[in-house]
Amino acid sequence: MKFSSKTIEEMIDILSTLPTIGRKSAQRLTLFLLRQPEEFIQKFSETLVKLKKDIKLCSLCFNFTETDPCPICSSPERNKELICVVEQPDDVLAIEKTNQYKGVYHVLHGAINHLDGISVSKLKISELLQRAKTAKEIIFALNPSVEGEVTIHYIVSLLKNYPIKLTRIARGLPIGIEIQYADDATLLNAIENRTEIK
Amino acid sequence: MKFSSKTIEEMIDILSTLPTIGRKSAQRLTLFLLRQPEEFIQKFSETLVKLKKDIKLCSLCFNFTETDPCPICSSPERNKELICVVEQPDDVLAIEKTNQYKGVYHVLHGAINHLDGISVSKLKISELLQRAKTAKEIIFALNPSVEGEVTIHYIVSLLKNYPIKLTRIARGLPIGIEIQYADDATLLNAIENRTEIK
Repeated sequence: MKFSSKTIEEMIDILSTLPTIGRKSAQRLTLFLLRQPEEFIQKFSETLVKLKKDIKLCSLCFNFTETDPCPICSSPERNKELICVVEQPDDVLAIEKTNQYKGVYHVLHGAINHLDGISVSKLKISELLQRAKTAKEIIFALNPSVEGEVTIHYIVSLLKNYPIKLTRIARGLPIGIEIQYADDATLLNAIENRTEIK
Repeated sequence: MKFSSKTIEEMIDILSTLPTIGRKSAQRLTLFLLRQPEEFIQKFSETLVKLKKDIKLCSLCFNFTETDPCPICSSPERNKELICVVEQPDDVLAIEKTNQYKGVYHVLHGAINHLDGISVSKLKISELLQRAKTAKEIIFALNPSVEGEVTIHYIVSLLKNYPIKLTRIARGLPIGIEIQYADDATLLNAIENRTEIK
């Protein structure tokens, strides 16, 4: 059984395409929206359009931004010679939340994944090579996946003759996880990457 | 750390107000939206406005509809003398999915809940009393909660002198739940409402 209204069905269809929202949730959300006041819906609708219109990619780091260069790239307090390479803007947000990193970023917008059709040319890799010329260190903060590994490997091979330091974020036991519950790969990494305490 | 863009923050704020969507999900959804093509965002934005503009409440059953009366109320195949009372449009959808019920509905738009400020006057109760005059049976399909019970009790007290049958949907063990895992109240209901097999 479907709703007898085409507009309701359309809204459910649209919401269902969003990540983590299934058809059932989309239906619940649509009925929720129907109960909201006119102003809320108007604001929602306008913000959507504004989002697409106002937000662009920073021409340096390719993070989402309203200004170009973005606030991070244009901040005098940021070390432009330290570049942290991430897959997505979400990752920038996660690292910024720690409030400790003082370098800049480079958002690749994905990782090499031939099955999903994400080839080298779709990623901001050539732009990274350009920026690498003036950098002192590049930190790879890609996701611990096959795709992340392949991407790091590929970029490192291109950068091998650059006189810069290439590093990757540490792998180990996350805080709060007991050793008995850690998976083998994580535990192995934690042992391999052990640090001296004395 | 927040996004440095006001528009992104606004979008996250709006999405966070939707049910089942927390701030973290709202952030992920916003970044997803930023990656979508112009046409998708345009369509999303337009459908939102259309949703609010096109959809109204059926003047008979108060379900959401584009036409008035709604397709169910205006269908010649539906028995207008059998009214199923539900709390929300979502409930109509759930019952319609069974494809078996051939009566009409009456959506109360909530249940009596004085703590949440949902008083009798905010619900479509007086409208139900009007419709009850031409009905033969009213089935209460409200949620099994204190609010649902209070609402059924209140409406039944108003209808006690009407020459109609008042029923409620059965309570019992749902399909797929083993007896050992059923909660006490459900099990008790299932025993009390036992049906004869011979």
